[in-house]
Amino acid sequence: MDEFNLDKPREECGVLGVWSPEPVDVAGLLHLGLFALQHRGQEAAGIVVSDGKEVRLEKDLGLVSQVFTPERLAKLQLEGARLGIGHVRYSTTGSNLRFNAQPLTVRSSKGILAIAHNGNFVNALEIRQRLLSEGAVFQTTGDTEVMINLIARYSQLSLVEATARAMRELKGGFSITLMNRQTLLAFRDANGVRPLVIGRLENGGYVFASEPVVFPLIGAQFVRDVRPGELVWVSTETGELESRQVLEPAPTPCAFEWIYFARSDATLDGIDVHAARIRLGEELAREAPVEADVVVPVPDSGIGAAIGYSRASGIPFDYGLYKNPYAGRTFIQPTQEARALKVKLKLAATSAVRGKRVVLVDDSIVRGTTSGRIVRMLKEAGAREVHVRISSPPIRYPCYYGIDTAARKQLIAATHSVEEIRAYIGADSLAFLSEPGVKRAIGGPVCLACFNGLYPAGQPDGELEKLALEDT
Amino acid sequence: MDEFNLDKPREECGVLGVWSPEPVDVAGLLHLGLFALQHRGQEAAGIVVSDGKEVRLEKDLGLVSQVFTPERLAKLQLEGARLGIGHVRYSTTGSNLRFNAQPLTVRSSKGILAIAHNGNFVNALEIRQRLLSEGAVFQTTGDTEVMINLIARYSQLSLVEATARAMRELKGGFSITLMNRQTLLAFRDANGVRPLVIGRLENGGYVFASEPVVFPLIGAQFVRDVRPGELVWVSTETGELESRQVLEPAPTPCAFEWIYFARSDATLDGIDVHAARIRLGEELAREAPVEADVVVPVPDSGIGAAIGYSRASGIPFDYGLYKNPYAGRTFIQPTQEARALKVKLKLAATSAVRGKRVVLVDDSIVRGTTSGRIVRMLKEAGAREVHVRISSPPIRYPCYYGIDTAARKQLIAATHSVEEIRAYIGADSLAFLSEPGVKRAIGGPVCLACFNGLYPAGQPDGELEKLALEDT
Amino acid sequence: MDEFNLDKPREECGVLGVWSPEPVDVAGLLHLGLFALQHRGQEAAGIVVSDGKEVRLEKDLGLVSQVFTPERLAKLQLEGARLGIGHVRYSTTGSNLRFNAQPLTVRSSKGILAIAHNGNFVNALEIRQRLLSEGAVFQTTGDTEVMINLIARYSQLSLVEATARAMRELKGGFSITLMNRQTLLAFRDANGVRPLVIGRLENGGYVFASEPVVFPLIGAQFVRDVRPGELVWVSTETGELESRQVLEPAPTPCAFEWIYFARSDATLDGIDVHAARIRLGEELAREAPVEADVVVPVPDSGIGAAIGYSRASGIPFDYGLYKNPYAGRTFIQPTQEARALKVKLKLAATSAVRGKRVVLVDDSIVRGTTSGRIVRMLKEAGAREVHVRISSPPIRYPCYYGIDTAARKQLIAATHSVEEIRAYIGADSLAFLSEPGVKRAIGGPVCLACFNGLYPAGQPDGELEKLALEDT
Amino acid sequence: MDEFNLDKPREECGVLGVWSPEPVDVAGLLHLGLFALQHRGQEAAGIVVSDGKEVRLEKDLGLVSQVFTPERLAKLQLEGARLGIGHVRYSTTGSNLRFNAQPLTVRSSKGILAIAHNGNFVNALEIRQRLLSEGAVFQTTGDTEVMINLIARYSQLSLVEATARAMRELKGGFSITLMNRQTLLAFRDANGVRPLVIGRLENGGYVFASEPVVFPLIGAQFVRDVRPGELVWVSTETGELESRQVLEPAPTPCAFEWIYFARSDATLDGIDVHAARIRLGEELAREAPVEADVVVPVPDSGIGAAIGYSRASGIPFDYGLYKNPYAGRTFIQPTQEARALKVKLKLAATSAVRGKRVVLVDDSIVRGTTSGRIVRMLKEAGAREVHVRISSPPIRYPCYYGIDTAARKQLIAATHSVEEIRAYIGADSLAFLSEPGVKRAIGGPVCLACFNGLYPAGQPDGELEKLALEDT
Repeated sequence: MDEFNLDKPREECGVLGVWSPEPVDVAGLLHLGLFALQHRGQEAAGIVVSDGKEVRLEKDLGLVSQVFTPERLAKLQLEGARLGIGHVRYSTTGSNLRFNAQPLTVRSSKGILAIAHNGNFVNALEIRQRLLSEGAVFQTTGDTEVMINLIARYSQLSLVEATARAMRELKGGFSITLMNRQTLLAFRDANGVRPLVIGRLENGGYVFASEPVVFPLIGAQFVRDVRPGELVWVSTETGELESRQVLEPAPTPCAFEWIYFARSDATLDGIDVHAARIRLGEELAREAPVEADVVVPVPDSGIGAAIGYSRASGIPFDYGLYKNPYAGRTFIQPTQEARALKVKLKLAATSAVRGKRVVLVDDSIVRGTTSGRIVRMLKEAGAREVHVRISSPPIRYPCYYGIDTAARKQLIAATHSVEEIRAYIGADSLAFLSEPGVKRAIGGPVCLACFNGLYPAGQPDGELEKLALEDT
Repeated sequence: MDEFNLDKPREECGVLGVWSPEPVDVAGLLHLGLFALQHRGQEAAGIVVSDGKEVRLEKDLGLVSQVFTPERLAKLQLEGARLGIGHVRYSTTGSNLRFNAQPLTVRSSKGILAIAHNGNFVNALEIRQRLLSEGAVFQTTGDTEVMINLIARYSQLSLVEATARAMRELKGGFSITLMNRQTLLAFRDANGVRPLVIGRLENGGYVFASEPVVFPLIGAQFVRDVRPGELVWVSTETGELESRQVLEPAPTPCAFEWIYFARSDATLDGIDVHAARIRLGEELAREAPVEADVVVPVPDSGIGAAIGYSRASGIPFDYGLYKNPYAGRTFIQPTQEARALKVKLKLAATSAVRGKRVVLVDDSIVRGTTSGRIVRMLKEAGAREVHVRISSPPIRYPCYYGIDTAARKQLIAATHSVEEIRAYIGADSLAFLSEPGVKRAIGGPVCLACFNGLYPAGQPDGELEKLALEDT
Repeated sequence: MDEFNLDKPREECGVLGVWSPEPVDVAGLLHLGLFALQHRGQEAAGIVVSDGKEVRLEKDLGLVSQVFTPERLAKLQLEGARLGIGHVRYSTTGSNLRFNAQPLTVRSSKGILAIAHNGNFVNALEIRQRLLSEGAVFQTTGDTEVMINLIARYSQLSLVEATARAMRELKGGFSITLMNRQTLLAFRDANGVRPLVIGRLENGGYVFASEPVVFPLIGAQFVRDVRPGELVWVSTETGELESRQVLEPAPTPCAFEWIYFARSDATLDGIDVHAARIRLGEELAREAPVEADVVVPVPDSGIGAAIGYSRASGIPFDYGLYKNPYAGRTFIQPTQEARALKVKLKLAATSAVRGKRVVLVDDSIVRGTTSGRIVRMLKEAGAREVHVRISSPPIRYPCYYGIDTAARKQLIAATHSVEEIRAYIGADSLAFLSEPGVKRAIGGPVCLACFNGLYPAGQPDGELEKLALEDT
Repeated sequence: MDEFNLDKPREECGVLGVWSPEPVDVAGLLHLGLFALQHRGQEAAGIVVSDGKEVRLEKDLGLVSQVFTPERLAKLQLEGARLGIGHVRYSTTGSNLRFNAQPLTVRSSKGILAIAHNGNFVNALEIRQRLLSEGAVFQTTGDTEVMINLIARYSQLSLVEATARAMRELKGGFSITLMNRQTLLAFRDANGVRPLVIGRLENGGYVFASEPVVFPLIGAQFVRDVRPGELVWVSTETGELESRQVLEPAPTPCAFEWIYFARSDATLDGIDVHAARIRLGEELAREAPVEADVVVPVPDSGIGAAIGYSRASGIPFDYGLYKNPYAGRTFIQPTQEARALKVKLKLAATSAVRGKRVVLVDDSIVRGTTSGRIVRMLKEAGAREVHVRISSPPIRYPCYYGIDTAARKQLIAATHSVEEIRAYIGADSLAFLSEPGVKRAIGGPVCLACFNGLYPAGQPDGELEKLALEDT
């Protein structure tokens, strides 16, 4: 994880799948595609490819560019490769992280299966306990292994049938891509919490991906979003896209995809991300106006909303914070002072704020520490006033659908009022966008669970969770 | 694999387990112990430790000294560690070797299980097919995962009972160490093909190991060999060694342990290895005498037998071949000429052979190419005659109990007569020790399957093997 | 070098020096400072520290964060450290790059000397030939070794005197920091082509640096710029800053520092960089107006000028290009198609340009290939028109003062008219800022040699250069 | 340095040079050759090659097999390569070891020079001071840079003349190989302290090397030893070997080459090493006989002498100590106990010593700690008596000619009587071979300075040494 983003919610994963009617450089396409999804997970990356007979896997901890060395890409070169899946991951802690990297491949009664997975199930532990009591063993503590075991249990069914059956048993917010030696499948949960889109290659093949941003890189055209609750696959007979509505759709995609996670050049469920961010800023300007001289984004997450705020308010937009592109994994002695330094290593105030009343626009506040340091930095650089405007509501609840918002007690908004947060970060004023404001700006039904605690796709059973932790 | 040992049979693994009545540096003890077992496997190494609650695993490809960096050893430091197992491995090829490293750890109905394994089952595929059809999934193609799944299936039994039951179903030649968070177990197959010994720590704890050479390094005393077919474990209540004779013992330990694999300072099943090698050389001198001036060992594998040959024949022993201790993994362009070079990089003739009739003593011949190059090297250095004497019979059959003797078609003795081999390697004479000679020298019942094709612990079902390969 | 910046001029180096009246963590201060100068050189980094007796050096190829691992920083920890220098470098090609990393340390008649150097001499070869004929030897082909040898030749003079004497003999554009075990010195060439500033630590110590951006990170205050032709040092007796005007100042600092190189939060020779970039954009809007709907910067280099262009023209600013922060060193097969891909890996058009007439603002064009690809990307994303505006004149001449602008034949503007470049990059219109426009925007005398071929600090003697190359 | 060899004198270097009349794979030949010289230095390795125009250098810390990766060897592939030199090094401590690796290359008035060097000058500091006062600078503290500067100072002379002149000024024990773009030279000091031999390639080219053991590997034939004080080179006109007797020969080659350093398959100055070691053992048996049951070598250094002792005494030779071939760089917590462990990691007693009176034969004792641990190990394994026999006299004086025998105060024999050493190591008896015994066994004039303090090639001036250290 980029240690400079400690104060941002973290997406857990990006998934990808490619199927071609004729042999192509599947590994090359997946490699490029994962690169475009890198923002969804920086801890691990992996690719599986198959030519219908052989299956090859390479995965490891690290960025796509670190994992896929020329040597490793060469190992994935299968002459007749026709399908494959890929994954980028923000992994949780643990002693053997490397073994948690995805795709996960297993040998089952259905031959080799490979799966890549974004999101979480809320009933994973319950299903896991059931499988354990039936004699299953697990090598990781992750949801993915539970899912693949569940599919494999239906040894009498076809892969499509077994997957459909398993998907009906799993609750939560998640997207997956799945393959055996011949067939590529993808599934999106009934609420469509996590995104999943379909693209078409020039040669008639198909691509499934977390975001459409992969398509321009690999010469694919956007076809449509996978529907909530829909299982899609490419027929090995006809080469055509097949679909089954496994679960009744109840669309509430995650609002944070538009607020922060998704790339600004993406369009998800028909809603353009960059345009949505500008509208979030415009709503924010209307809801929380302020007399000021300049609108300054926290780069890069606040740029869209800052442009929107500037447009709706008429206050000039300027670049008040330089962002050091090399701020990465520099070793700093881990002291309190050091954490303050990290913000200074990443950001520096420009002359744009000197003597000005500044509107500082960002997308969210998790712990509040970074925001406080930026406010101080602007004041030290001569800003007369700093008014912080956040283009989303206060985050008060954990996400159970694949986003690491930090434990509840670390969420400053879970335990502090807006005024207390303002005082803590030293701003002259602070405002968050309202839930209705978010809905208006995005313009469709969205999951706002981390703001309001209403979980459209269910919550985990706390008792079970405790039991499981004792055993791990 | 040491590329200079292409012409030697390869042991597949070494196993180790430590249990202490009080917290000790379990990882440190295992680390030292694995170091002493390094000759049994150079491809991968791993250690699992537990304090009764937490379980930590570190494993990777490489030598013990490469895998266990200070950082990795630090990660294995558990304040209250009381038990652990370790493994060194010569791994087979495959695209994800790293995932095949051992110990293998899984979460099962019995909590976390960790296993380290030396040897092979002959009915692994049959059991694997059964488990697959019951919905199990496998992440590797190895025997070890089959074994652990089999144990986990007996979810209603205790760990000791479930292990005993599973061991009764598995056929072949193998030794294992196994643990959960509290209990350490070890098992040796009914034929005792692979070695396994018991040692006692100064603090009353126990050590299970492939060879007793581990004990002096970690301050343990040799107690006894594990009996063929015996399951041993340390009682978590009394801290005492418990035992159950799971299968009727039918002892036929692998002769090659004394001929080549085991360390010369080991004693296995009551028979000292160095002394056995000298006796092998003495038998060889009696069976295949020759008029000569000097007895020269191929270092280091032929030293013991050469001393024995010299003693029994009265011909002086001398160091006719210098062995370069740095001959390891030097990069050489992989040409035919290069393979010849590798022998020259490793060995060089000294003045001891100049003008002499030389008896060249080695433990075995697999492909014959290296032997031929050494004979030529001695002649180029001025040896008048070179008489090759091998302290074991010709290897004509594959080993199904954990030793990689190369495919049958690569075994020169499987397809050539002794006279043809002599001509191929350019020796003035060539003799192998007879099977009775081996038995006399070792002095107990032994498995000679690779020499005579008689497999005391059974053979794999060829049909199943073919089916399985199609699915991998 | 960031392979995605092939089409930008490259700064060759950043220099740094720290002197403290009492022991401090000099290595830590230099480490942080180099981090802030990382944009000036990404190929190599180095630090030298001294406590007055011992001298320690660590340098290597790589980013500051790669070179200075915890282990390496630990090696630089000298209990009583009081001074040190640091360097970041964009190195030229050669077979032993690592040996060219700086600081360069030598043992001389004046004890150990260490030097860090930014820029180039135009008479380096002439001096080098002279020293060679006197029996000197050189381990590198770089200017730095020439300089240190020249200083060492004055073995009868003090370090300050010898440095002053050597600086008088060297012609060109460069800045240096220099130290022996006790004394820290810095020098800036008579034209002040390369920047150099003085800061003061809280404890009364001094810092010399290429840009003032290092000061906030290490708790220093900006004092002043080093004057062109000025030698400064810290007196070891009084701890005070000493100065000698070695050469008559003829200030013509490099215009490109404000146009592109320097960080936007820097102020050089009294002129704020961010403000200058906005003025460059404003001048550009006045000189080359166009009817359009949106002003889009090429991130990040065109941001300041784009804001200026938007302000002066009244056309809205928007974020039309997403920049992938992970676009770095991904391995792509080096084909023609691949080079096109690299731009797509780094940049992607957002919805901001769809259906719009776009003003695309960038700071410079070197080869023109990247600009062409961005224009095409915008058009493919739906831009109706793309008008390219460049906030500097066409680059037509090489820089001899430390900037790698690519060979002359690769400079598209050296061989093509503006109209030809426009056609090549496929823009609807193209305009460069004029030289007078640059001067007005920056507001002081500047070196414009790469635009007009007038070299204020002299040119190398071509004949000598040819001779030297034959010998290397 | 192999941490298990702390108790052995350490050779500092091996040198190599190749010249071919036609283009060949010079880097490949040097790579193989260095591999054969690896025993002379394990800390660093380097190769320089030239095709007459271009010069390429690769060097780094590490074993030959670690430094010369396929990538690095590829960088040394020069189409028309015809000459090159190579080096292996045991380097001294220091903060920038890497920069001390050899060959050293410089650009001088004579073009590029490269040098590889084994041994030391006793007047290096005096010459260094002279050069410093003339304005020279040094990047290392090593002798090699002094030598190359000295040669370069004679800028008016040809390379052969300048080298001859410089060699006359240098005193000490050393061998060098030296080249510019066309010419390969080699020199051996007037006493011939360090070895240097000449070989001939099949294509008529020449090889200069520290030991003839490189020849079989690269298809060369031994021609002769370089004479003490002789400068040899290959004429670029005729391709023939040229020679000049620069200094009067006064041959006293280092006795330790035969006792321990040189490979047992080498012949130096006409005396075979393996045969000499057997004679050393035979002399030892005659000088220091003992009643015993078995003669056991400390592997591998004591093998030759043990065979000799066994032959002369009639007591049987046996392998009483197993040597773990993987004992290398394992990480052990650096405690006192740990140092004891290291011996156990490397060596283990076999059954050959049980119940026996053992003669333990080794080549030398430096600190005595390892010997003590081996004696204890044998006794613990059941040896009834242990009689230590050393095939050289006690080491009492430092070597100034390129061998690191440890500081004088660490030499146990410098401060303890033989009886005190015997008590310290716990042996039942201890005897060293006498100086006359060494001379008889080797059979020629030898340098015995480390035994008797008589330095045939001079001693360093202590005053100068002190001065120099103050400045470093």
